Amino acid sequence: MAFWVDETFEGVCRVSVEAEEQLYSKQSEFQLVEIFQTKGFGRVLTIDGMFMTSERDEHFYHEMLVQPPLNCAPSIERVLVIGGGDGGTVREVLSHKEVEKVVMVEIDGVVVDASKKYLSSIGRAWEDPRLELRIADGIEYVKNAPSGSFDVVLLDHSDPVGPAEGLFNIAFYKDCRRVLTEKGVLAMQSESPLLQRDTFLEIKSTLSDVFDVIHPYFSFVPLYGLGGWSFTFASNQVDPLVLVDRRVAFQEERCKHYNRDIHRGTFALPNDLKRGLKI
Amino acid sequence: MAFWVDETFEGVCRVSVEAEEQLYSKQSEFQLVEIFQTKGFGRVLTIDGMFMTSERDEHFYHEMLVQPPLNCAPSIERVLVIGGGDGGTVREVLSHKEVEKVVMVEIDGVVVDASKKYLSSIGRAWEDPRLELRIADGIEYVKNAPSGSFDVVLLDHSDPVGPAEGLFNIAFYKDCRRVLTEKGVLAMQSESPLLQRDTFLEIKSTLSDVFDVIHPYFSFVPLYGLGGWSFTFASNQVDPLVLVDRRVAFQEERCKHYNRDIHRGTFALPNDLKRGLKI
Repeated sequence: MAFWVDETFEGVCRVSVEAEEQLYSKQSEFQLVEIFQTKGFGRVLTIDGMFMTSERDEHFYHEMLVQPPLNCAPSIERVLVIGGGDGGTVREVLSHKEVEKVVMVEIDGVVVDASKKYLSSIGRAWEDPRLELRIADGIEYVKNAPSGSFDVVLLDHSDPVGPAEGLFNIAFYKDCRRVLTEKGVLAMQSESPLLQRDTFLEIKSTLSDVFDVIHPYFSFVPLYGLGGWSFTFASNQVDPLVLVDRRVAFQEERCKHYNRDIHRGTFALPNDLKRGLKI
Repeated sequence: MAFWVDETFEGVCRVSVEAEEQLYSKQSEFQLVEIFQTKGFGRVLTIDGMFMTSERDEHFYHEMLVQPPLNCAPSIERVLVIGGGDGGTVREVLSHKEVEKVVMVEIDGVVVDASKKYLSSIGRAWEDPRLELRIADGIEYVKNAPSGSFDVVLLDHSDPVGPAEGLFNIAFYKDCRRVLTEKGVLAMQSESPLLQRDTFLEIKSTLSDVFDVIHPYFSFVPLYGLGGWSFTFASNQVDPLVLVDRRVAFQEERCKHYNRDIHRGTFALPNDLKRGLKI
Protein backbone atom coordinates (compact mmCIF):
# COMPACT_ATOMS: atom_id res chain seq x y z
CA MET A 1 0.00 0.00 0.00
CA ALA A 2 1.69 3.20 -1.18
CA PHE A 3 1.85 6.26 1.07
CA TRP A 4 3.40 9.73 0.94
CA VAL A 5 6.52 10.77 2.84
CA ASP A 6 6.32 14.56 3.11
CA GLU A 7 8.58 17.48 3.93
CA THR A 8 6.76 20.75 4.48
CA PHE A 9 8.18 24.26 4.22
CA GLU A 10 5.72 26.02 6.48
CA GLY A 11 3.34 28.32 4.63
CA VAL A 12 5.07 27.78 1.29
CA CYS A 13 5.24 24.30 -0.15
CA ARG A 14 5.46 20.59 0.46
CA VAL A 15 7.46 17.92 -1.34
CA SER A 16 6.26 14.32 -1.13
CA VAL A 17 7.77 11.05 -2.26
CA GLU A 18 5.64 7.99 -2.84
CA ALA A 19 6.81 5.21 -0.54
CA GLU A 20 6.03 1.51 -0.50
CA GLU A 21 7.38 0.53 2.88
CA GLN A 22 9.02 1.94 5.97
CA LEU A 23 12.24 -0.02 6.42
CA TYR A 24 13.55 1.64 9.57
CA SER A 25 12.50 4.07 12.29
CA LYS A 26 14.40 4.96 15.43
CA GLN A 27 14.34 7.91 17.76
CA SER A 28 18.01 8.42 18.58
CA GLU A 29 19.39 10.58 21.38
CA PHE A 30 19.26 13.47 18.91
CA GLN A 31 16.61 12.94 16.26
CA LEU A 32 14.11 10.68 14.51
CA VAL A 33 15.89 8.59 11.87
CA GLU A 34 13.72 6.90 9.22
CA ILE A 35 14.35 5.00 6.01
CA PHE A 36 11.69 4.31 3.39
CA GLN A 37 11.56 2.17 0.29
CA THR A 38 10.15 4.43 -2.44
CA LYS A 39 9.05 3.89 -6.01
CA GLY A 40 10.92 6.72 -7.68
CA PHE A 41 13.95 7.40 -5.48
CA GLY A 42 14.99 4.00 -4.19
CA ARG A 43 15.67 4.05 -0.46
CA VAL A 44 15.19 7.45 1.17
CA LEU A 45 16.66 8.64 4.49
CA THR A 46 14.79 11.27 6.51
CA ILE A 47 15.78 12.90 9.79
CA ASP A 48 13.07 14.59 11.83
CA GLY A 49 10.89 14.45 8.72
CA MET A 50 13.42 16.20 6.48
CA PHE A 51 14.76 14.50 3.36
CA MET A 52 18.46 13.75 3.85
CA THR A 53 19.38 11.58 0.90
CA SER A 54 18.11 8.91 -1.46
CA GLU A 55 19.68 6.22 -3.56
CA ARG A 56 18.55 7.95 -6.74
CA ASP A 57 19.47 11.58 -6.09
CA GLU A 58 22.39 11.32 -3.63
CA HIS A 59 25.05 11.93 -6.26
CA PHE A 60 23.75 15.44 -6.97
CA TYR A 61 24.47 16.38 -3.37
CA HIS A 62 27.55 14.35 -2.48
CA GLU A 63 29.45 15.03 -5.70
CA MET A 64 28.72 18.75 -5.49
CA LEU A 65 29.68 19.10 -1.83
CA VAL A 66 32.94 17.21 -2.31
CA GLN A 67 34.26 17.50 -5.86
CA PRO A 68 34.46 21.29 -6.28
CA PRO A 69 36.73 21.73 -3.21
CA LEU A 70 38.66 18.50 -3.76
CA ASN A 71 39.50 19.37 -7.35
CA CYS A 72 40.86 22.84 -6.64
CA ALA A 73 42.52 22.49 -3.22
CA PRO A 74 46.34 22.62 -3.53
CA SER A 75 46.66 19.66 -1.18
CA ILE A 76 44.05 17.05 -0.18
CA GLU A 77 46.00 14.61 1.94
CA ARG A 78 44.11 15.16 5.20
CA VAL A 79 40.37 15.75 5.10
CA LEU A 80 37.92 16.40 7.93
CA VAL A 81 34.22 15.68 7.42
CA ILE A 82 31.72 16.93 10.01
CA GLY A 83 28.40 15.08 9.75
CA GLY A 84 27.74 13.02 6.65
CA GLY A 85 26.30 10.03 8.50
CA ASP A 86 25.04 8.29 5.35
CA GLY A 87 28.62 7.83 4.13
CA GLY A 88 28.21 9.44 0.69
CA THR A 89 30.56 12.30 1.42
CA VAL A 90 33.48 10.18 2.62
CA ARG A 91 32.94 7.87 -0.35
CA GLU A 92 33.45 10.85 -2.69
CA VAL A 93 36.50 12.04 -0.72
CA LEU A 94 38.09 8.60 -0.68
CA SER A 95 37.70 8.24 -4.43
CA HIS A 96 40.72 10.59 -4.60
CA LYS A 97 43.92 8.55 -4.45
CA GLU A 98 45.85 11.53 -3.04
CA VAL A 99 43.75 11.47 0.13
CA GLU A 100 45.74 9.80 2.90
CA LYS A 101 43.43 10.28 5.85
CA VAL A 102 39.78 11.21 6.38
CA VAL A 103 38.44 11.93 9.84
CA MET A 104 34.65 11.80 9.84
CA VAL A 105 32.96 13.15 12.97
CA GLU A 106 29.27 12.32 13.08
CA ILE A 107 27.31 13.06 16.23
CA ASP A 108 24.67 10.39 15.77
CA GLY A 109 25.81 6.77 15.57
CA VAL A 110 22.24 5.72 14.82
CA VAL A 111 22.42 7.43 11.41
CA VAL A 112 25.65 5.61 10.60
CA ASP A 113 24.33 2.23 11.73
CA ALA A 114 21.07 2.63 9.80
CA SER A 115 22.95 3.81 6.70
CA LYS A 116 25.42 0.94 6.84
CA LYS A 117 22.54 -1.51 6.97
CA TYR A 118 20.05 0.02 4.53
CA LEU A 119 21.99 2.45 2.32
CA SER A 120 25.05 0.41 1.45
CA SER A 121 24.85 1.63 -2.16
CA ILE A 122 25.55 5.17 -0.89
CA GLY A 123 28.21 4.58 1.77
CA ARG A 124 30.53 2.35 -0.22
CA ALA A 125 33.75 3.27 1.57
CA TRP A 126 33.16 2.37 5.22
CA GLU A 127 35.88 -0.28 5.07
CA ASP A 128 38.54 2.00 3.56
CA PRO A 129 41.54 1.93 5.94
CA ARG A 130 42.12 5.66 5.37
CA LEU A 131 38.80 6.44 7.12
CA GLU A 132 38.74 7.24 10.83
CA LEU A 133 35.10 7.35 11.92
CA ARG A 134 34.34 9.06 15.20
CA ILE A 135 30.89 9.17 16.72
CA ALA A 136 31.30 12.48 18.50
CA ASP A 137 30.35 16.14 18.56
CA GLY A 138 31.95 17.95 15.62
CA ILE A 139 32.04 21.25 17.50
CA GLU A 140 34.07 19.72 20.32
CA TYR A 141 36.28 17.89 17.85
CA VAL A 142 37.41 21.02 15.98
CA LYS A 143 37.79 22.91 19.25
CA ASN A 144 40.40 20.39 20.40
CA ALA A 145 42.04 19.42 17.09
CA PRO A 146 45.60 20.68 16.47
CA SER A 147 46.02 23.82 14.36
CA GLY A 148 46.88 23.30 10.70
CA SER A 149 46.05 19.62 10.79
CA PHE A 150 43.72 19.40 7.76
CA ASP A 151 43.92 20.39 4.10
CA VAL A 152 40.16 20.30 3.57
CA VAL A 153 37.17 20.63 5.91
CA LEU A 154 33.72 19.59 4.66
CA LEU A 155 30.57 20.42 6.61
CA ASP A 156 27.86 17.94 5.70
CA HIS A 157 25.19 18.77 8.23
CA SER A 158 21.44 19.06 8.31
CA ASP A 159 19.43 22.28 8.74
CA PRO A 160 20.35 24.70 11.54
CA VAL A 161 17.87 23.21 14.00
CA GLY A 162 18.51 20.40 16.49
CA PRO A 163 22.05 18.99 16.76
CA ALA A 164 23.38 20.95 13.76
CA GLU A 165 22.52 24.38 15.18
CA GLY A 166 25.97 25.09 16.63
CA LEU A 167 27.57 24.40 13.24
CA PHE A 168 26.28 27.69 11.87
CA ASN A 169 28.13 30.19 14.08
CA ILE A 170 31.34 32.15 13.97
CA ALA A 171 33.06 30.36 16.85
CA PHE A 172 32.75 27.07 15.00
CA TYR A 173 33.95 28.59 11.70
CA LYS A 174 36.96 30.09 13.49
CA ASP A 175 37.91 26.66 14.78
CA CYS A 176 37.52 25.25 11.27
CA ARG A 177 39.84 27.97 9.99
CA ARG A 178 42.36 27.19 12.71
CA VAL A 179 42.51 23.45 12.02
CA LEU A 180 43.09 24.13 8.31
CA THR A 181 46.52 24.62 6.76
CA GLU A 182 47.33 28.02 5.30
CA LYS A 183 46.20 26.90 1.85
CA GLY A 184 43.33 24.85 3.20
CA VAL A 185 39.78 25.02 1.89
CA LEU A 186 36.35 24.56 3.44
CA ALA A 187 33.09 23.67 1.75
CA MET A 188 29.67 23.29 3.30
CA GLN A 189 26.08 22.84 2.32
CA SER A 190 24.41 26.22 2.81
CA GLU A 191 20.68 25.62 2.43
CA SER A 192 18.13 26.64 -0.22
CA PRO A 193 18.72 30.17 -1.52
CA LEU A 194 15.03 30.25 -2.44
CA LEU A 195 13.28 28.79 0.60
CA GLN A 196 15.92 29.61 3.24
CA ARG A 197 17.37 32.74 1.72
CA ASP A 198 18.16 34.44 5.04
CA THR A 199 20.18 31.47 6.28
CA PHE A 200 22.01 31.26 2.95
CA LEU A 201 22.95 34.94 3.08
CA GLU A 202 23.91 34.77 6.75
CA ILE A 203 26.30 31.86 6.18
CA LYS A 204 28.22 33.88 3.64
CA SER A 205 28.23 36.90 5.88
CA THR A 206 29.47 34.95 8.93
CA LEU A 207 32.13 33.07 6.94
CA SER A 208 33.36 36.42 5.60
CA ASP A 209 34.47 37.38 9.11
CA VAL A 210 36.74 34.34 9.20
CA PHE A 211 37.97 33.62 5.66
CA ASP A 212 39.34 35.97 3.00
CA VAL A 213 37.52 34.53 0.04
CA ILE A 214 33.99 33.13 0.01
CA HIS A 215 32.37 31.61 -3.06
CA PRO A 216 28.79 30.40 -2.70
CA TYR A 217 27.84 27.96 -5.43
CA PHE A 218 24.51 26.84 -6.69
CA SER A 219 23.37 23.41 -7.81
CA PHE A 220 20.47 21.01 -8.02
CA VAL A 221 19.42 18.43 -5.42
CA PRO A 222 15.94 17.11 -6.33
CA LEU A 223 14.74 16.21 -2.82
CA TYR A 224 16.05 19.34 -1.10
CA GLY A 225 13.54 22.17 -1.08
CA LEU A 226 12.32 22.61 -4.63
CA GLY A 227 15.58 21.40 -6.13
CA GLY A 228 17.76 24.53 -6.04
CA TRP A 229 20.46 24.10 -3.44
CA SER A 230 23.54 26.02 -2.39
CA PHE A 231 26.98 25.17 -1.12
CA THR A 232 29.63 27.61 0.03
CA PHE A 233 33.36 27.42 -0.58
CA ALA A 234 35.72 29.33 1.68
CA SER A 235 39.48 29.75 1.81
CA ASN A 236 42.17 32.33 2.32
CA GLN A 237 44.17 31.85 -0.83
CA VAL A 238 42.60 29.34 -3.15
CA ASP A 239 40.83 30.26 -6.40
CA PRO A 240 38.10 27.63 -6.85
CA LEU A 241 38.21 28.01 -10.65
CA VAL A 242 41.82 26.79 -10.93
CA LEU A 243 41.53 23.03 -11.18
CA VAL A 244 44.04 20.27 -10.59
CA ASP A 245 43.79 18.64 -13.96
CA ARG A 246 44.77 15.05 -13.10
CA ARG A 247 42.13 14.90 -10.38
CA VAL A 248 39.35 16.33 -12.53
CA ALA A 249 40.16 14.04 -15.44
CA PHE A 250 39.73 11.05 -13.14
CA GLN A 251 36.49 12.34 -11.60
CA GLU A 252 34.97 13.11 -14.99
CA GLU A 253 35.18 9.41 -15.78
CA ARG A 254 33.85 8.41 -12.39
CA CYS A 255 31.10 10.87 -11.47
CA LYS A 256 27.44 10.73 -12.43
CA HIS A 257 27.06 14.50 -12.34
CA TYR A 258 30.31 16.42 -11.85
CA ASN A 259 32.68 17.49 -14.62
CA ARG A 260 34.83 20.54 -15.33
CA ASP A 261 32.05 22.45 -17.08
CA ILE A 262 29.72 21.75 -14.17
CA HIS A 263 32.50 22.95 -11.83
CA ARG A 264 32.78 26.25 -13.64
CA GLY A 265 29.00 26.57 -14.07
CA THR A 266 28.18 25.94 -10.43
CA PHE A 267 30.05 29.10 -9.40
CA ALA A 268 27.90 31.20 -11.77
CA LEU A 269 25.42 32.91 -9.48
CA PRO A 270 22.02 34.28 -10.52
CA ASN A 271 21.74 38.09 -10.41
CA ASP A 272 19.22 37.88 -7.62
CA LEU A 273 21.68 36.01 -5.37
CA LYS A 274 24.60 38.24 -6.32
CA ARG A 275 22.54 41.26 -5.33
CA GLY A 276 21.53 39.60 -2.04
CA LEU A 277 25.16 38.67 -1.37
CA LYS A 278 26.33 42.14 -2.49
CA ILE A 279 28.86 40.70 -4.94
CA MET B 1 -8.51 28.67 5.05
CA ALA B 2 -5.29 27.44 3.47
CA PHE B 3 -5.31 24.43 1.13
CA TRP B 4 -2.76 22.56 -1.02
CA VAL B 5 -2.52 22.84 -4.79
CA ASP B 6 -0.76 19.66 -5.93
CA GLU B 7 1.00 18.34 -9.00
CA THR B 8 1.69 14.62 -8.91
CA PHE B 9 4.28 12.70 -10.91
CA GLU B 10 2.62 9.31 -10.85
CA GLY B 11 4.40 6.78 -8.68
CA VAL B 12 7.28 9.13 -7.91
CA CYS B 13 6.58 12.39 -6.16
CA ARG B 14 4.19 15.26 -5.56
CA VAL B 15 4.84 18.98 -5.25
CA SER B 16 2.31 21.10 -3.38
CA VAL B 17 1.97 24.82 -2.90
CA GLU B 18 -0.02 26.27 -0.02
CA ALA B 19 -2.85 28.41 -1.40
CA GLU B 20 -5.15 30.88 0.29
CA GLU B 21 -7.77 31.35 -2.39
CA GLN B 22 -8.76 30.18 -5.84
CA LEU B 23 -9.00 33.32 -7.96
CA TYR B 24 -10.03 31.77 -11.26
CA SER B 25 -11.16 28.48 -12.76
CA LYS B 26 -12.39 27.84 -16.27
CA GLN B 27 -12.59 24.77 -18.46
CA SER B 28 -11.61 26.11 -21.88
CA GLU B 29 -12.08 24.31 -25.15
CA PHE B 30 -8.67 22.72 -24.52
CA GLN B 31 -7.90 22.50 -20.83
CA LEU B 32 -8.70 23.46 -17.25
CA VAL B 33 -7.17 26.85 -16.45
CA GLU B 34 -6.86 27.83 -12.77
CA ILE B 35 -5.21 30.63 -10.84
CA PHE B 36 -4.55 30.54 -7.09
CA GLN B 37 -3.38 33.09 -4.57
CA THR B 38 -0.60 31.38 -2.61
CA LYS B 39 1.43 32.28 0.43
CA GLY B 40 4.89 31.59 -0.88
CA PHE B 41 4.68 31.99 -4.66
CA GLY B 42 2.25 34.86 -5.18
CA ARG B 43 -0.33 34.04 -7.82
CA VAL B 44 0.09 30.62 -9.43
CA LEU B 45 -1.26 29.46 -12.81
CA THR B 46 -2.05 25.79 -13.34
CA ILE B 47 -3.30 24.03 -16.47
CA ASP B 48 -4.94 20.64 -16.08
CA GLY B 49 -3.43 20.54 -12.60
CA MET B 50 0.13 21.18 -13.76
CA PHE B 51 2.08 24.18 -12.48
CA MET B 52 2.64 26.61 -15.35
CA THR B 53 4.05 29.70 -13.70
CA SER B 54 3.95 31.84 -10.58
CA GLU B 55 4.66 35.44 -9.76
CA ARG B 56 7.60 34.44 -7.61
CA ASP B 57 9.37 31.88 -9.76
CA GLU B 58 8.42 32.90 -13.31
CA HIS B 59 11.73 34.67 -14.02
CA PHE B 60 13.67 31.40 -13.67
CA TYR B 61 11.71 29.96 -16.56
CA HIS B 62 11.06 32.96 -18.80
CA GLU B 63 14.55 34.41 -18.61
CA MET B 64 16.14 31.03 -19.28
CA LEU B 65 13.89 30.16 -22.22
CA VAL B 66 14.42 33.55 -23.86
CA GLN B 67 17.75 35.10 -22.91
CA PRO B 68 20.17 32.35 -23.96
CA PRO B 69 18.90 32.31 -27.58
CA LEU B 70 18.27 36.07 -27.78
CA ASN B 71 21.79 36.91 -26.62
CA CYS B 72 23.59 34.70 -29.11
CA ALA B 73 21.40 34.83 -32.22
CA PRO B 74 23.09 36.88 -34.99
CA SER B 75 19.81 38.68 -35.71
CA ILE B 76 16.72 39.01 -33.51
CA GLU B 77 14.48 41.35 -35.47
CA ARG B 78 11.62 38.92 -36.07
CA VAL B 79 10.67 36.47 -33.34
CA LEU B 80 7.99 33.77 -33.29
CA VAL B 81 6.65 32.49 -29.97
CA ILE B 82 4.45 29.38 -29.92
CA GLY B 83 2.44 29.13 -26.70
CA GLY B 84 3.47 31.34 -23.80
CA GLY B 85 -0.07 32.37 -22.88
CA ASP B 86 0.93 34.01 -19.59
CA GLY B 87 2.91 36.67 -21.46
CA GLY B 88 6.23 36.22 -19.66
CA THR B 89 8.08 35.00 -22.73
CA VAL B 90 7.07 37.88 -25.00
CA ARG B 91 7.90 40.32 -22.18
CA GLU B 92 11.46 38.95 -22.13
CA VAL B 93 11.70 39.04 -25.93
CA LEU B 94 10.40 42.61 -26.14
CA SER B 95 12.91 43.82 -23.57
CA HIS B 96 15.39 43.64 -26.48
CA LYS B 97 15.33 46.91 -28.41
CA GLU B 98 16.57 45.20 -31.57
CA VAL B 99 13.37 43.16 -31.78
CA GLU B 100 11.07 44.70 -34.38
CA LYS B 101 8.25 42.19 -34.46
CA VAL B 102 7.03 39.33 -32.26
CA VAL B 103 4.32 36.99 -33.45
CA MET B 104 2.88 35.05 -30.54
CA VAL B 105 0.61 32.13 -31.44
CA GLU B 106 -1.25 30.76 -28.44
CA ILE B 107 -3.95 28.17 -28.98
CA ASP B 108 -6.00 28.99 -25.91
CA GLY B 109 -7.39 32.52 -25.58
CA VAL B 110 -8.66 31.65 -22.12
CA VAL B 111 -5.08 31.43 -20.82
CA VAL B 112 -4.28 34.85 -22.26
CA ASP B 113 -7.44 36.46 -20.89
CA ALA B 114 -6.94 34.99 -17.42
CA SER B 115 -3.28 35.99 -17.42
CA LYS B 116 -4.03 39.55 -18.53
CA LYS B 117 -6.49 39.88 -15.68
CA TYR B 118 -4.70 38.07 -12.84
CA LEU B 119 -1.02 37.86 -13.78
CA SER B 120 -0.33 41.37 -14.98
CA SER B 121 2.99 41.40 -13.12
CA ILE B 122 4.18 38.61 -15.44
CA GLY B 123 2.79 39.71 -18.82
CA ARG B 124 3.94 43.32 -18.77
CA ALA B 125 4.24 43.79 -22.54
CA TRP B 126 0.76 43.07 -23.90
CA GLU B 127 0.44 46.66 -25.10
CA ASP B 128 3.78 46.76 -26.93
CA PRO B 129 3.02 47.70 -30.57
CA ARG B 130 5.66 45.25 -31.79
CA LEU B 131 3.55 42.33 -30.52
CA GLU B 132 1.14 40.54 -32.84
CA LEU B 133 -0.95 38.17 -30.72
CA ARG B 134 -2.78 35.42 -32.55
CA ILE B 135 -5.13 33.01 -30.83
CA ALA B 136 -4.56 30.08 -33.15
CA ASP B 137 -2.98 26.67 -33.56
CA GLY B 138 0.81 27.02 -33.64
CA ILE B 139 1.21 23.89 -35.76
CA GLU B 140 -1.05 25.33 -38.47
CA TYR B 141 0.65 28.71 -38.20
CA VAL B 142 4.15 27.42 -38.92
CA LYS B 143 2.82 25.15 -41.65
CA ASN B 144 1.55 28.19 -43.54
CA ALA B 145 4.12 30.83 -42.60
CA PRO B 146 6.57 31.94 -45.33
CA SER B 147 10.02 30.35 -45.37
CA GLY B 148 12.83 32.32 -43.77
CA SER B 149 10.48 34.76 -42.09
CA PHE B 150 11.83 34.58 -38.52
CA ASP B 151 15.22 35.02 -36.86
CA VAL B 152 14.21 33.23 -33.67
CA VAL B 153 11.53 30.65 -32.84
CA LEU B 154 10.67 29.99 -29.18
CA LEU B 155 8.51 27.05 -28.14
CA ASP B 156 6.87 27.83 -24.81
CA HIS B 157 4.43 24.97 -24.49
CA SER B 158 3.19 22.68 -21.75
CA ASP B 159 3.86 18.95 -21.45
CA PRO B 160 3.37 16.68 -24.47
CA VAL B 161 -0.21 15.78 -23.55
CA GLY B 162 -3.37 17.57 -24.63
CA PRO B 163 -3.07 20.51 -27.05
CA ALA B 164 0.76 20.59 -26.94
CA GLU B 165 1.20 17.00 -28.12
CA GLY B 166 1.74 17.85 -31.79
CA LEU B 167 4.51 20.28 -30.87
CA PHE B 168 6.87 17.42 -30.08
CA ASN B 169 7.22 15.78 -33.52
CA ILE B 170 9.51 16.01 -36.48
CA ALA B 171 6.97 17.47 -38.92
CA PHE B 172 6.50 20.46 -36.63
CA TYR B 173 10.25 20.91 -36.09
CA LYS B 174 10.79 20.80 -39.87
CA ASP B 175 8.29 23.63 -40.30
CA CYS B 176 10.07 25.58 -37.56
CA ARG B 177 13.35 25.10 -39.41
CA ARG B 178 11.76 26.24 -42.66
CA VAL B 179 10.33 29.48 -41.24
CA LEU B 180 13.71 30.37 -39.77
CA THR B 181 16.40 32.27 -41.63
CA GLU B 182 19.63 30.50 -42.45
CA LYS B 183 21.26 31.79 -39.27
CA GLY B 184 18.09 31.47 -37.23
CA VAL B 185 17.89 29.82 -33.83
CA LEU B 186 15.24 27.87 -31.97
CA ALA B 187 14.86 27.32 -28.24
CA MET B 188 12.25 25.30 -26.43
CA GLN B 189 11.45 24.02 -23.00
CA SER B 190 12.31 20.32 -23.02
CA GLU B 191 10.92 18.90 -19.78
CA SER B 192 12.56 17.52 -16.64
CA PRO B 193 15.67 15.47 -17.39
CA LEU B 194 15.08 13.69 -14.09
CA LEU B 195 11.33 12.98 -14.07
CA GLN B 196 10.72 12.97 -17.84
CA ARG B 197 14.09 11.73 -19.00
CA ASP B 198 12.78 9.81 -22.02
CA THR B 199 10.96 12.87 -23.37
CA PHE B 200 14.04 15.03 -22.79
CA LEU B 201 16.27 12.60 -24.69
CA GLU B 202 13.73 12.14 -27.47
CA ILE B 203 13.44 15.89 -28.09
CA LYS B 204 17.18 16.10 -28.70
CA SER B 205 17.10 13.04 -30.92
CA THR B 206 14.16 14.34 -33.01
CA LEU B 207 15.63 17.84 -33.34
CA SER B 208 18.90 16.29 -34.51
CA ASP B 209 17.15 15.06 -37.64
CA VAL B 210 16.25 18.65 -38.52
CA PHE B 211 18.99 20.95 -37.20
CA ASP B 212 22.78 20.65 -37.45
CA VAL B 213 23.61 21.69 -33.91
CA ILE B 214 21.59 20.90 -30.79
CA HIS B 215 22.53 22.15 -27.33
CA PRO B 216 20.32 21.06 -24.45
CA TYR B 217 20.73 23.29 -21.44
CA PHE B 218 19.90 22.77 -17.83
CA SER B 219 18.50 25.19 -15.29
CA PHE B 220 16.32 25.57 -12.22
CA VAL B 221 12.55 26.25 -12.15
CA PRO B 222 11.27 25.69 -8.59
CA LEU B 223 7.70 24.69 -9.42
CA TYR B 224 8.52 22.42 -12.35
CA GLY B 225 9.13 18.83 -11.31
CA LEU B 226 11.63 18.89 -8.48
CA GLY B 227 13.32 22.05 -9.73
CA GLY B 228 15.71 20.76 -12.36
CA TRP B 229 14.48 21.75 -15.79
CA SER B 230 15.82 21.60 -19.31
CA PHE B 231 15.64 23.72 -22.41
CA THR B 232 17.04 22.89 -25.82
CA PHE B 233 18.75 25.24 -28.26
CA ALA B 234 18.90 24.31 -31.93
CA SER B 235 20.39 25.97 -34.98
CA ASN B 236 22.35 25.22 -38.08
CA GLN B 237 25.20 27.63 -37.68
CA VAL B 238 25.07 29.47 -34.38
CA ASP B 239 27.39 28.77 -31.45
CA PRO B 240 25.34 29.51 -28.33
CA LEU B 241 28.47 30.42 -26.35
CA VAL B 242 29.33 33.40 -28.55
CA LEU B 243 27.39 36.28 -27.05
CA VAL B 244 26.35 39.63 -28.48
CA ASP B 245 27.95 41.80 -25.86
CA ARG B 246 25.72 44.90 -26.03
CA ARG B 247 22.62 42.77 -25.52
CA VAL B 248 24.02 40.79 -22.61
CA ALA B 249 25.29 43.91 -20.87
CA PHE B 250 21.78 45.33 -20.96
CA GLN B 251 20.14 42.11 -19.77
CA GLU B 252 22.59 41.70 -16.89
CA GLU B 253 21.26 44.96 -15.47
CA ARG B 254 17.67 44.02 -16.10
CA CYS B 255 17.30 40.31 -15.30
CA LYS B 256 16.64 38.73 -11.92
CA HIS B 257 18.45 35.54 -12.82
CA TYR B 258 20.29 35.63 -16.15
CA ASN B 259 23.83 36.91 -16.68
CA ARG B 260 26.80 35.89 -18.84
CA ASP B 261 28.16 33.42 -16.28
CA ILE B 262 24.73 31.82 -15.96
CA HIS B 263 24.59 31.69 -19.78
CA ARG B 264 27.85 29.77 -19.96
CA GLY B 265 26.99 27.64 -16.94
CA THR B 266 23.57 26.57 -18.21
CA PHE B 267 25.17 24.80 -21.18
CA ALA B 268 27.33 22.70 -18.82
CA LEU B 269 25.62 19.32 -18.77
CA PRO B 270 25.94 16.72 -15.99
CA ASN B 271 27.79 13.54 -16.99
CA ASP B 272 24.65 11.50 -16.60
CA LEU B 273 22.80 13.61 -19.19
CA LYS B 274 25.79 13.72 -21.55
CA ARG B 275 25.93 9.94 -21.45
CA GLY B 276 22.16 9.71 -22.07
CA LEU B 277 22.46 12.18 -24.95
CA LYS B 278 25.60 10.43 -26.24
CA ILE B 279 27.60 13.67 -26.35
